[in-house]
Amino acid sequence: MKTKERILLTSLDLFNRYGEPAVTTNHIADEMEISPGNLYYHYRNKEDILLCLYERFEEALLEALKAPEPEAVKLENMWLFLHLIFENIWHYRFFYRDLDHILSKSEKIKRRYSRVLLKKIDTAKLLCTGLSERGILVASASEIDALSHNMALTASYWLNFQSALQKSPQDELSAKDISLGVYQVMALIAPYLRDEERGMLQSLSRVYLGDTLSNG
Amino acid sequence: MKTKERILLTSLDLFNRYGEPAVTTNHIADEMEISPGNLYYHYRNKEDILLCLYERFEEALLEALKAPEPEAVKLENMWLFLHLIFENIWHYRFFYRDLDHILSKSEKIKRRYSRVLLKKIDTAKLLCTGLSERGILVASASEIDALSHNMALTASYWLNFQSALQKSPQDELSAKDISLGVYQVMALIAPYLRDEERGMLQSLSRVYLGDTLSNG
Repeated sequence: MKTKERILLTSLDLFNRYGEPAVTTNHIADEMEISPGNLYYHYRNKEDILLCLYERFEEALLEALKAPEPEAVKLENMWLFLHLIFENIWHYRFFYRDLDHILSKSEKIKRRYSRVLLKKIDTAKLLCTGLSERGILVASASEIDALSHNMALTASYWLNFQSALQKSPQDELSAKDISLGVYQVMALIAPYLRDEERGMLQSLSRVYLGDTLSNG
Repeated sequence: MKTKERILLTSLDLFNRYGEPAVTTNHIADEMEISPGNLYYHYRNKEDILLCLYERFEEALLEALKAPEPEAVKLENMWLFLHLIFENIWHYRFFYRDLDHILSKSEKIKRRYSRVLLKKIDTAKLLCTGLSERGILVASASEIDALSHNMALTASYWLNFQSALQKSPQDELSAKDISLGVYQVMALIAPYLRDEERGMLQSLSRVYLGDTLSNG
């Protein structure tokens, strides 16, 4: 693997483990056993690395957000759809963890991320409207609007919320927390479903979560 | 006002305006036109100030979280209840804005805040159970559980979400965002209500939000 690519992956790993504010370019060079000079040959500074990582994150997230056509939206597909979104969040969790810090440091990332967030809300709206048009979901336009905002919010902050609930910073989040996140977003949709689909959702939840729920 | 108290209020104001990580004890002393030595006479360091502010925040939030007895829970009271919670969040918004940063810096605050967050979830559960016992809200135990988590999450992260949606860091959040936050939490409860209360909630929303919604 090229050094330039290794620098990105090492940075992502360190950012995820220790938080972006705590990691310096010296840490990254140390971890890779290269000289700081070698690192600066590839990236001007940490902001440069951060921006490259942000661009990959954004690209992957926008790909995951490509919703199916409204007439193809099925309740069963929503799990997979949300799971992919949460996997993206997990992969770039440093970004969510220190979001406010990162956004206040970089005007460029702030502008771009606000557009991505609007896209999240739009996709949620598209999915709910798709279910609504086929009578599976029963909600007014203003209810779908509030629901879509809450779906985007819950998906974006679930890991932070789980992390804040833990008593010690050493408790590590895990894949279990991703499944719980998907479940919580589905729970936002549940009460708007027809009885049949609401029942189906509860059965699917049990299968999907396994024994996670009792520990949650 | 005593200097000790003025230091706390000035710190809170600066933290809210610029974010806790960006404010040093020198900034605080400068703003008050006192010497750093005078400040250190009252507080050992910034962490000491932060902990004092956290204690006030916690005390005020626990006071706001004192839910009425289940049999006294009324849908109309929920607006006021949530409004008080959001006012508390607004008053100490620096804490929410840099939450992950602050929790990773202080084990003590982390431990205490995780308990407060559990209390938020418990209070939400108590309110929903109160409405459920009188047949106003129709939901299973597992639905109330998921709902309570989502209520605590939405209340805790609404301002961050609104702030991340803004294109520029200079856009200031305002009291309008508090009202929208209350509305979004109520929207989580809405689909579980009986038709009569669901209709009432929509009318109340329009009155409460005024023309806020069309701009949101």
